[in-house]
Amino acid sequence: MAMFKKILYPTDFSDVAQEAIKYIDQLRDGARQWVFILHAIDSRVLDLLIYNPIISMEIEKNLREDAQSSMDSLRVHFEETGFEVETSIEVGIPASVILRTEEAEDVSIIAMGSHGKSNVREMILGSVSEEVIHSSRKPVLIVKRPSR
Amino acid sequence: MAMFKKILYPTDFSDVAQEAIKYIDQLRDGARQWVFILHAIDSRVLDLLIYNPIISMEIEKNLREDAQSSMDSLRVHFEETGFEVETSIEVGIPASVILRTEEAEDVSIIAMGSHGKSNVREMILGSVSEEVIHSSRKPVLIVKRPSR
Repeated sequence: MAMFKKILYPTDFSDVAQEAIKYIDQLRDGARQWVFILHAIDSRVLDLLIYNPIISMEIEKNLREDAQSSMDSLRVHFEETGFEVETSIEVGIPASVILRTEEAEDVSIIAMGSHGKSNVREMILGSVSEEVIHSSRKPVLIVKRPSR
Repeated sequence: MAMFKKILYPTDFSDVAQEAIKYIDQLRDGARQWVFILHAIDSRVLDLLIYNPIISMEIEKNLREDAQSSMDSLRVHFEETGFEVETSIEVGIPASVILRTEEAEDVSIIAMGSHGKSNVREMILGSVSEEVIHSSRKPVLIVKRPSR
């Protein structure tokens, strides 16, 4: 019975998101298992910040490259732990991107940090994890900020 | 590295709470591990419903006995899965009881259903899982209502 066959790991590469890694590692059970690493670039923040579409594309490109390099390290880590790894970087509303991927990839569980990089962003837009917990059909493992 | 050494399983014995059992079973890793089964009798509901302290004590006694028999079945299940089991039934505000137990028992993770037995209760008092996620220091595995 592989209940954690495909683990969706949405990450903004923050400390809290990184904290989830060690718990995902513990879900490794010896059978063939996948980690799907997902990073969403928040389209609303892009829209808010940038009015010039050419600059916007340039910034999106930089954000993607930056995310890709963080993802490459995560891929190495999870492959060394014995997981098969898939990755995706998408532009959209993070909770929607996560929930769409949950459905499309038929994942077994979502493992993520309770909070993201930006407190200000969360005061304005709400926490991504709350939206995911609310609408997800699959179990969600919420990992808290590492204690000081 | 035993990250799931002691699993706190708060339950109101609802379908959603029961759904968490199979995920807890999957956290079994062969080392010595504990499941701490916790049931909280909501003191606010008792207070709202009952004005006569003698009747209140009688009802609390019945609720405890009822909870104890459900707990006994859970204990058997988890012991068969290979866990050591501790149990507790407390009267209080469920989220507070859970968070207090998290600290007192130094648990590794909390695994619980996203919603409880009563939708009406949650409309009035909010969902226990939301409060637990908000204030817990340890990871929380939220299990969703079984899909129809």
